[in-house]
Amino acid sequence: MSKRPGVCLVVSGPGLIHALGGMANANMNCWPLLVIGGSPERNQETMGAFQEFPQVEACRLYTKFSARPSSIEAVPFVIEKAVRSSIYGRPGACYVDIPADFVNLQVNVNSIKYVECCMSPPISMAETSAVCTAASVIRSAKQPLLIIGKGAAYAHAEDSIQKLVEQYKLPFLPTPMGKGVVPDNHPYCVGAARSRALQFADVIVLFGARLNWILHFGLPPRYQPDVKFIQVDICAEELGNNVKPAVTLLGDINAVTKQLLEELDKTPWQYPPESKWWKTLREKMKSNEAASKELASKKSLPMNYYTVFYHVQEQLPRDCFVVSEGANTMDIGRTVLQNYLPRHRLDAGTFGTMGVGLGFAIAAAMVAKDRSPGQRIICVEGDSAFGFSGMEVETICRYNLPIILLVVNNNGIYQGFDSDTWKEMLKFQDAASVVPPMCLLPNSHYEQVMTAFGGKGYFVQTPEELQRSLRQSLADTTKPSLINIMIEPQATRKTQDFHWLTRSNM
Amino acid sequence: MSKRPGVCLVVSGPGLIHALGGMANANMNCWPLLVIGGSPERNQETMGAFQEFPQVEACRLYTKFSARPSSIEAVPFVIEKAVRSSIYGRPGACYVDIPADFVNLQVNVNSIKYVECCMSPPISMAETSAVCTAASVIRSAKQPLLIIGKGAAYAHAEDSIQKLVEQYKLPFLPTPMGKGVVPDNHPYCVGAARSRALQFADVIVLFGARLNWILHFGLPPRYQPDVKFIQVDICAEELGNNVKPAVTLLGDINAVTKQLLEELDKTPWQYPPESKWWKTLREKMKSNEAASKELASKKSLPMNYYTVFYHVQEQLPRDCFVVSEGANTMDIGRTVLQNYLPRHRLDAGTFGTMGVGLGFAIAAAMVAKDRSPGQRIICVEGDSAFGFSGMEVETICRYNLPIILLVVNNNGIYQGFDSDTWKEMLKFQDAASVVPPMCLLPNSHYEQVMTAFGGKGYFVQTPEELQRSLRQSLADTTKPSLINIMIEPQATRKTQDFHWLTRSNM
Amino acid sequence: MSKRPGVCLVVSGPGLIHALGGMANANMNCWPLLVIGGSPERNQETMGAFQEFPQVEACRLYTKFSARPSSIEAVPFVIEKAVRSSIYGRPGACYVDIPADFVNLQVNVNSIKYVECCMSPPISMAETSAVCTAASVIRSAKQPLLIIGKGAAYAHAEDSIQKLVEQYKLPFLPTPMGKGVVPDNHPYCVGAARSRALQFADVIVLFGARLNWILHFGLPPRYQPDVKFIQVDICAEELGNNVKPAVTLLGDINAVTKQLLEELDKTPWQYPPESKWWKTLREKMKSNEAASKELASKKSLPMNYYTVFYHVQEQLPRDCFVVSEGANTMDIGRTVLQNYLPRHRLDAGTFGTMGVGLGFAIAAAMVAKDRSPGQRIICVEGDSAFGFSGMEVETICRYNLPIILLVVNNNGIYQGFDSDTWKEMLKFQDAASVVPPMCLLPNSHYEQVMTAFGGKGYFVQTPEELQRSLRQSLADTTKPSLINIMIEPQATRKTQDFHWLTRSNM
Amino acid sequence: MSKRPGVCLVVSGPGLIHALGGMANANMNCWPLLVIGGSPERNQETMGAFQEFPQVEACRLYTKFSARPSSIEAVPFVIEKAVRSSIYGRPGACYVDIPADFVNLQVNVNSIKYVECCMSPPISMAETSAVCTAASVIRSAKQPLLIIGKGAAYAHAEDSIQKLVEQYKLPFLPTPMGKGVVPDNHPYCVGAARSRALQFADVIVLFGARLNWILHFGLPPRYQPDVKFIQVDICAEELGNNVKPAVTLLGDINAVTKQLLEELDKTPWQYPPESKWWKTLREKMKSNEAASKELASKKSLPMNYYTVFYHVQEQLPRDCFVVSEGANTMDIGRTVLQNYLPRHRLDAGTFGTMGVGLGFAIAAAMVAKDRSPGQRIICVEGDSAFGFSGMEVETICRYNLPIILLVVNNNGIYQGFDSDTWKEMLKFQDAASVVPPMCLLPNSHYEQVMTAFGGKGYFVQTPEELQRSLRQSLADTTKPSLINIMIEPQATRKTQDFHWLTRSNM
Repeated sequence: MSKRPGVCLVVSGPGLIHALGGMANANMNCWPLLVIGGSPERNQETMGAFQEFPQVEACRLYTKFSARPSSIEAVPFVIEKAVRSSIYGRPGACYVDIPADFVNLQVNVNSIKYVECCMSPPISMAETSAVCTAASVIRSAKQPLLIIGKGAAYAHAEDSIQKLVEQYKLPFLPTPMGKGVVPDNHPYCVGAARSRALQFADVIVLFGARLNWILHFGLPPRYQPDVKFIQVDICAEELGNNVKPAVTLLGDINAVTKQLLEELDKTPWQYPPESKWWKTLREKMKSNEAASKELASKKSLPMNYYTVFYHVQEQLPRDCFVVSEGANTMDIGRTVLQNYLPRHRLDAGTFGTMGVGLGFAIAAAMVAKDRSPGQRIICVEGDSAFGFSGMEVETICRYNLPIILLVVNNNGIYQGFDSDTWKEMLKFQDAASVVPPMCLLPNSHYEQVMTAFGGKGYFVQTPEELQRSLRQSLADTTKPSLINIMIEPQATRKTQDFHWLTRSNM
Repeated sequence: MSKRPGVCLVVSGPGLIHALGGMANANMNCWPLLVIGGSPERNQETMGAFQEFPQVEACRLYTKFSARPSSIEAVPFVIEKAVRSSIYGRPGACYVDIPADFVNLQVNVNSIKYVECCMSPPISMAETSAVCTAASVIRSAKQPLLIIGKGAAYAHAEDSIQKLVEQYKLPFLPTPMGKGVVPDNHPYCVGAARSRALQFADVIVLFGARLNWILHFGLPPRYQPDVKFIQVDICAEELGNNVKPAVTLLGDINAVTKQLLEELDKTPWQYPPESKWWKTLREKMKSNEAASKELASKKSLPMNYYTVFYHVQEQLPRDCFVVSEGANTMDIGRTVLQNYLPRHRLDAGTFGTMGVGLGFAIAAAMVAKDRSPGQRIICVEGDSAFGFSGMEVETICRYNLPIILLVVNNNGIYQGFDSDTWKEMLKFQDAASVVPPMCLLPNSHYEQVMTAFGGKGYFVQTPEELQRSLRQSLADTTKPSLINIMIEPQATRKTQDFHWLTRSNM
Repeated sequence: MSKRPGVCLVVSGPGLIHALGGMANANMNCWPLLVIGGSPERNQETMGAFQEFPQVEACRLYTKFSARPSSIEAVPFVIEKAVRSSIYGRPGACYVDIPADFVNLQVNVNSIKYVECCMSPPISMAETSAVCTAASVIRSAKQPLLIIGKGAAYAHAEDSIQKLVEQYKLPFLPTPMGKGVVPDNHPYCVGAARSRALQFADVIVLFGARLNWILHFGLPPRYQPDVKFIQVDICAEELGNNVKPAVTLLGDINAVTKQLLEELDKTPWQYPPESKWWKTLREKMKSNEAASKELASKKSLPMNYYTVFYHVQEQLPRDCFVVSEGANTMDIGRTVLQNYLPRHRLDAGTFGTMGVGLGFAIAAAMVAKDRSPGQRIICVEGDSAFGFSGMEVETICRYNLPIILLVVNNNGIYQGFDSDTWKEMLKFQDAASVVPPMCLLPNSHYEQVMTAFGGKGYFVQTPEELQRSLRQSLADTTKPSLINIMIEPQATRKTQDFHWLTRSNM
Repeated sequence: MSKRPGVCLVVSGPGLIHALGGMANANMNCWPLLVIGGSPERNQETMGAFQEFPQVEACRLYTKFSARPSSIEAVPFVIEKAVRSSIYGRPGACYVDIPADFVNLQVNVNSIKYVECCMSPPISMAETSAVCTAASVIRSAKQPLLIIGKGAAYAHAEDSIQKLVEQYKLPFLPTPMGKGVVPDNHPYCVGAARSRALQFADVIVLFGARLNWILHFGLPPRYQPDVKFIQVDICAEELGNNVKPAVTLLGDINAVTKQLLEELDKTPWQYPPESKWWKTLREKMKSNEAASKELASKKSLPMNYYTVFYHVQEQLPRDCFVVSEGANTMDIGRTVLQNYLPRHRLDAGTFGTMGVGLGFAIAAAMVAKDRSPGQRIICVEGDSAFGFSGMEVETICRYNLPIILLVVNNNGIYQGFDSDTWKEMLKFQDAASVVPPMCLLPNSHYEQVMTAFGGKGYFVQTPEELQRSLRQSLADTTKPSLINIMIEPQATRKTQDFHWLTRSNM
């Protein structure tokens, strides 16, 4: 999260199973991660040692590099290689295994060859002729669209991409973790007309965004059959996945965007702001935003998702980190909560693993603490998602981290029951017999999980309570807080154009 | 947990990472387990589908059998094979992968070949001549010892082993999960002289117990160099691990024990109750029990481990399940809390994975609910261990399960700080800079994690409060409860004979 | 191959790829095998050392146990465990990895704990009540059949099974590697009526034979839908595979057969030799044998498979090892070439890997050399199969092993061309353009591959040449020989009852 | 081997073990390879089907991409991805699994979405500023050295690198498979002073060469401790391996070399041809070449390696492919046999797998046949290496390929015995007891393995016979030939500067 790509470090005891989820998630999401695991004393191997397991092998599928140093002397060397592997090329997770006997073994300090940290990742650029072709395809586009992925954020390409957007007046869409590379409230952001933009664009430039499930594989009916993709990516093997691209630009996304800017600069041009395409998009955005606003302004109680997020957005500090996980909570929240800064949104990402939210929030808080004191972390959790790692609230309170947790509570996964219905159901049978597996206990007081450890807790049921609790949480910089926000248990998102995919992904 | 070996079933969504810990733990502990995982639609494979991952392959290291049915038609066949593989031979975990497109696919019901459930696991017996040799080695033992492992519990060998113990007056030791096969309070149980018994026995009969780290690999100095092991086990490959046994008896442990009884019955014999060996063991037990009792009777506050467990043991229902995880909490608790019934203790076992306790408690409660209403589950958790899966309290409350959670709280892992010291430490620096990684927040109110979901919570600091809260929890059958028991943050266990292994393992 | 189960040892250099085929084949065929592989110096790991590869991990799927000793001191321990694991329980392959730096490292000899070789595998027996049930099912069978698998051979169950066959007059079938447990020319062997026997039996006792593809999975239409299987096997997990058995007898096959004998002995009984079932089987055998004999007696040239094998069988020494691999060569040869001794047939087995034949022949020769000098190894190879490892002829000549190689040469895989057709085809185009991939060069002089290394070679085209060359090869004990037997390139086997499976598997 | 990167295709039956060696070798050597494997019918999976094995999983460690299409419809899609993955980025091996039931399954042709072949691999360039730094480091070098690896050959960088060498008068060394990018007889090639060049260079530019065991890891004592490495590579993760480089240039090697040329062109400069460094190198080359020539001119019989290769080199056609494998044969042959064209040398490469030579020769012949009729393939094999796949001579003869095989025969691996010594040894004991495992049968007539299939064979013992047989083989374009060249069984290479590494690697 610094100019120099950071590596997140996890240390796990023997039996590193608990770290595997993080490793898988990091690797599938291309996040740099180094996990150090402990394993039993080497001389007990094959004897049934405590938590003996082939951990290096078990991590193979989840990592770019997985190894055990052959001796204490080799530790610095292997760590350097693991750190470097995690940040060079497309980032990912690495694993280093440390046997228990290393911990107390004495070696001559002179036998250790200390290794300097590796240099910043090498930068590469696209071939000049491919850049020319790309520029010419962009110029000739009738209905262009830029899609800004997390790869753009990792590459610190914010300035160059914003310049591209503004100079040529091109509509853009961020992916979930690409939000904030260009601010969400930028006039050229067409997030509010996402489906329309994808479906009718004739030229799409992908900046570090993969054509995976999140982007519906780049295929019809979500896209035009003859849409021209221009792929900008750091990973050669990504190019051509699922579609045959019109142009591929292999290289560092920031460097390549600068090449594009330079090439486009050669001849005066901009995409006409009064084009039919812009008009279509603006109309669609307007109607979508109106629909959201209407939902947000509903006065009925319990609240719906839109009302909640509308009030959260109102008070969201401009520079905060937004962390999020859940199903509807994450999906709808993403459309309403705005990011203004790159690398300030952390969510479950491509792999969609639940349970990562509080860990993300804690990591972001540790970074913020040193770098920009006062910065807040807003962690927006579905109630089911919170259940995966809610006990991390203890960690938050132990280190007194500047985190505000919002639990958007509908008593279930996708849908739950209100407590009256619940009681009615249990009159004749016990819960195990009648409650569908996706329902959770109604009216759980998650805020008490925070107060149990000395933080502030709020149980809110109305917009006013929500506003007030948010105001207080933001004002109180001495303690973390958790706001448990009760919503309509049967609340869903507004109807989508592709009803067969109501769960939109961006 | 029934006469017919049960298979525990876990169903996991796509991205089954959360189930891996359970699978690893089950497989290393030889528990029958079937995990059903979901994977993305097959026609999106290799395209970057939601949570696309080679799950069958990822489960290989953790299972006896891992497969995806090739079609819906094959589902019953593969499930039968997975269930059968998990319970036949040495039990273990199995994984079956179900792609998302199976869920809605329509097939002709006649194309499905329904498969009956498999028969009870086949029983095998030891070779007659090996049984003779074993009997003769036992007869000639000067300082015999039986070790009863969880394999004996799985084999339902309780009646035959208790008969062997009593008929021949042989001292026995249970392993952690072998506790209760013969009641812990049996006069021939030498658990209170464990180290002494292991160290000086000249003949040791292992009933379904592996010579792994828990039994110190069967090697000196914890054992006599020339101790004769008689291994009774269902798994041929286990025989001879780490030591060269005097006799191996391969087969179902109950069947083999009956063979042994029959053989020993042929000639009248019993091990002399007045032998020097029995005298030594009884003296050691007496002195160890006295030391524990002394610790337990200490009036100083905060309490120590022994005081806590002494009072818990006093009120423990005879037929309850005892579930436990933690470090000192699990290790010391095991020596004080008594089991009177087989298969009524569930702890972290051989693999020692933390985070399994609440899941075990819930599973035991679901079994108890139907089989013997009124039976209670006492779940004894270290505070750190509780942190791994404490949010499962919501599940406990949702289904209103008959579980009493005890959190033995020393503010840390192995050792923590009291809250005064903590405040002092934080005066000049923030927690992240000064708090050692093994310390947790002092005086965490874990009981509020229970009250947050409608259960009963108790925060106890004295023996009297502990007694009272236990009494109330046991009396109240309408709600689960959690007793948060504050102990001395620097409390440890009493000194061990092998100080280099103060963390005794049985 | 001795009374004590042997372990075959393979030593491979770094980059053990060449050993993987053997390991896979051994493991799938349940053969005990220990492979020792070399890996690079440990201090070069992760640096790009010579043939650096995660070999222990790469062997996981192919082995029962795969490990690298953590130090020289641990080598004896790990080797003992590998040997033991390969022969205890169901046998299989094991892998031990030795890093290059171990080879020259000096250690104090006293630090090495030498480990005695493990004891003979433990023997287990079936449950008495299951034996009773099995006996009663056998007695009540109307159309019984025994199938003798290689597990019976491994268990040295020949005497007890032969007694069972003869005492109760039961028809039996051997599987490919079960041939010779009871001699193939035994009057109760119904190999010549295999399909009929399988299809109409009402009770089938499997002695160490799996219901895999070789036995058509135990399913209709190859079997009666309600056939009762009695499975006798050493491996619990095998029981119930693909069918629901009537009785399972888990244990050492020899021990269990003795239990069965003892149980059946209790009441005088034998299966009536004049039953309709015996009559049906004998008629079918007679007509099948007549058909084979007719084919064998055909005078037309080139010869067909049956003619060749008829003449080979005529001269086959009673005590020779028969090794075989190929497609039709192995399948048809198996039906004609007779085994009279157990464990004297080695073929590609369950996994069907080609390229194993010469290695088997060499291993058998090394065993025979010391144990019974004068014993011959007859290795019957298809021409394509010989191509996989034909260069091993150098090894055969180097050690001057008592091996006679027969290459049954039809110029292709399944079918080839005669040389006139070949020349015609090449008149207008080159071979790469016109020759189907399954055709090999016509009239290859494989016998010259033998003479190149000083052995004797024969190129035979007529029955007389075949007879003469066999006679000479058997007479000459000073040199290995190879007889290259030209057959009709389009020769196939005789028509089968199940034409959809003309390639019968037993 | 064409301008468009080629993919080598291997098709393997079920039980793809035989293809694993090739896959491992290709992947470790970064060769593009696609292996198509067959697996059993899907509906027999988990039932014990013929050669049932988790092949996709087994290939994971050996490939960049390993998958089974989920349906016939998905086949074109998966093949496209496999081909693309094998050639995009750093090339490597890919595996696609085809179940047997696909072969006969009928699908509607319209349901198949045919996929076009992927575009040529995307090209990337180095960052401009890094190129500047690199140029400045090169200019300031006192003792510069270029190392040309196989990555330069794959990138078709021959023209640009030769220009760099000649324009700036820089000494260069090829790696084994980098030979021919600039001709071996180029005056600036310092291959004959390899150790000296590596040991004293102060700046080394690596063009697609890894600092692995072949280049002694880039570490002292084989290099100066403060040597500055400039790494030019297509793979980001390779940069920084084993050393901390002075400059890294990430990108397509041809594109980056052109960038370097352009940058260096900006200011007139060349490395002084009269420098002390050039003088040192030339002197060392002269003395090394004199030593080789002296060995080559030895008249004693049997011949030594140098004599053999001297005479081969004399007649080597300028445009031939040189294929080689073996130990001394490959290592010494590499120093004498010259390549003048890029991508015309194929040897065992980084992974050093034996058994690949004849496959390489056949593949090269198939390419040559269509592209440049008349071109010859010279395959230089050690006798042990030939033993791995010598039977492929049948394939060579079947397709009548323009291959000349040279077997350099010292009767063993590293060293063998002459036949007199051999006979003496066998007088009292048999070969298995006395012959060291690295010795092969003396005077094996490998040439008869060629004549067995109709090719030409030569057995040569003198320089004159060698010359004559080579002349005849080259003149006869109608048949493949094999020359079996007897050399001194105890022959080794000339003494090296680093006697502890007499087996030099380049």
